[in-house]
Amino acid sequence: MAPALPLALTMGEPAGVGPEITVAAWRAVRAAGPAFFVIADPSLFHGAPLALIATPVEASKVFGSALPVLPLALAAPAMPGRPDPRNAAAVIAAIKRAVVLAKAGEAGAVVTNPIQKSVLTGAGFPHPGHTEFLGELAGTGSPPVMMLACPGLRVVPVTVHVALKRAAAELTTEAIVTQGRIAAAALRRDFGITAPRLVVAGLNPHAGEDGTMGREDIEIVAPAVVALRDAGIAARGPLPADTLFTPRARATYDCALCMYHDQALIPVKTLDMDGGVNVTLGLSIVRTSPDHGTALDIAGKGLADPGSLIAALRMAGEMVAQRARGAAS
Amino acid sequence: MAPALPLALTMGEPAGVGPEITVAAWRAVRAAGPAFFVIADPSLFHGAPLALIATPVEASKVFGSALPVLPLALAAPAMPGRPDPRNAAAVIAAIKRAVVLAKAGEAGAVVTNPIQKSVLTGAGFPHPGHTEFLGELAGTGSPPVMMLACPGLRVVPVTVHVALKRAAAELTTEAIVTQGRIAAAALRRDFGITAPRLVVAGLNPHAGEDGTMGREDIEIVAPAVVALRDAGIAARGPLPADTLFTPRARATYDCALCMYHDQALIPVKTLDMDGGVNVTLGLSIVRTSPDHGTALDIAGKGLADPGSLIAALRMAGEMVAQRARGAAS
Repeated sequence: MAPALPLALTMGEPAGVGPEITVAAWRAVRAAGPAFFVIADPSLFHGAPLALIATPVEASKVFGSALPVLPLALAAPAMPGRPDPRNAAAVIAAIKRAVVLAKAGEAGAVVTNPIQKSVLTGAGFPHPGHTEFLGELAGTGSPPVMMLACPGLRVVPVTVHVALKRAAAELTTEAIVTQGRIAAAALRRDFGITAPRLVVAGLNPHAGEDGTMGREDIEIVAPAVVALRDAGIAARGPLPADTLFTPRARATYDCALCMYHDQALIPVKTLDMDGGVNVTLGLSIVRTSPDHGTALDIAGKGLADPGSLIAALRMAGEMVAQRARGAAS
Repeated sequence: MAPALPLALTMGEPAGVGPEITVAAWRAVRAAGPAFFVIADPSLFHGAPLALIATPVEASKVFGSALPVLPLALAAPAMPGRPDPRNAAAVIAAIKRAVVLAKAGEAGAVVTNPIQKSVLTGAGFPHPGHTEFLGELAGTGSPPVMMLACPGLRVVPVTVHVALKRAAAELTTEAIVTQGRIAAAALRRDFGITAPRLVVAGLNPHAGEDGTMGREDIEIVAPAVVALRDAGIAARGPLPADTLFTPRARATYDCALCMYHDQALIPVKTLDMDGGVNVTLGLSIVRTSPDHGTALDIAGKGLADPGSLIAALRMAGEMVAQRARGAAS
């Protein structure tokens, strides 16, 4: 088997915690890997030897002794905690470059540092977030699916960044089925789980308790579970969400499909805030990211915890290796 | 100080796990207390010596050597897993009796075993659940407030057993403020926390992110936080719910006001399913209960975990002692 391709890590918001957690993550994984390079302005990184590279292949060679940087110049100097709209174009260019390299087979996967959406939006970035942008750059026909993973738990929020009232009103059987199918396929291909077990959370308290607390679980969620089973996927539900994340319950499934943002993210972050990883499924490439934001309030102070970025890099490395094993077998 | 009054434990659904967890709980606390007696048909209990009592005061004397039972006859023999509507009247009578004894100062508090709501409803019980019934029996003017507590976390769901769509549509500033005030008062009186710190979760993802994902956090939740502060209560919010239950976040408050059922119950049950306790605030008496149901599927099989009932008994005992200390000082 060929040596693993290095991972492409994006710059993210240069005024956020991205630069410091990148240096800390390099220290944490330099010995055991996975090797990565960061697409960024070299001036952002302090406290680590840098190796400026021209192509990804160089990254693997130097990774043990220096943080490999594929240079991409900022328009203005980065000031921790104070995002500058003039740097929005470079933030976006780093994401595009990473995707191009991954699609070309020069990088193993894309790992993204957090972006400051408000700054990008002000500079004309038309996407609600990273995930949607990546869907445009590396989509496969269906909308990309967000999965959050921490040790012992994987969740997919079927609706994401919408008001709770809209999430309840706009939930569809089709969305649950589509995302369940994409999740099951990814669990097989990228996580090596031959027969993935899905559970589907109810929308309402107690999964609606036989329709006495809302009809959606009967009319929308239950048919989606039937359709997933008809597609050959081991799916159960709708199940009451409050008891779905106990240790005993978590041992019975590989991924929980949740009906809205907080139903999915509360258990992941309650269990393991710093080791949570955001994975985008349904792209032609592997993509992970830390599950936190730019943390502007602590940027540049050396207080940021690199745990989630380290977990994101390791998970991307494992997913790439799993894909390679699957393709070779 | 007078010796602590024994706690009154209700029978709950006789076909559920109540009888067996009652025996297990007696074994767990018989040595160190708190002393309790169960209001039930003595035929329900196996594997422990019973002491039939006529008045609560006898319970404390015998508690170390036998499970005290204040007899209340069933209309039909209890069959584990198969609730009998003929017994509904006795289930309800046990609750009423417990409240009467607590209000009369003969019992220290009421601890309730799980009931099977559907059976009681079929027999004409007009209340949505225990909590509302207790509000009628021992209310103080405001609707009772449900608090869930486990080691390291207390939460209050401001809306409870309604469909998610309705919870979002019917949330009011007044409900948040009223429940916040009742919670703060109870934390002082029953938990001995002199200056309780409340946090208020946002309704929408990221607490609405400046109104881009729903206006409720700006229009309904934020004014409630202001009103609580104006009432002299240390309250913060609305805060994004997904990051509100990390270990670091939990250390910063005494109770989280949540906007709907699963937002409150997911973190409690994810953290500590078997030690979670349901506490009813805003009654004239102290009342706790385990945070699980009748578990008909495993009733009578010796599989039920008594952890939550034990935690409920201990918490009631501590609350009663705290009230007594407060009243004496």
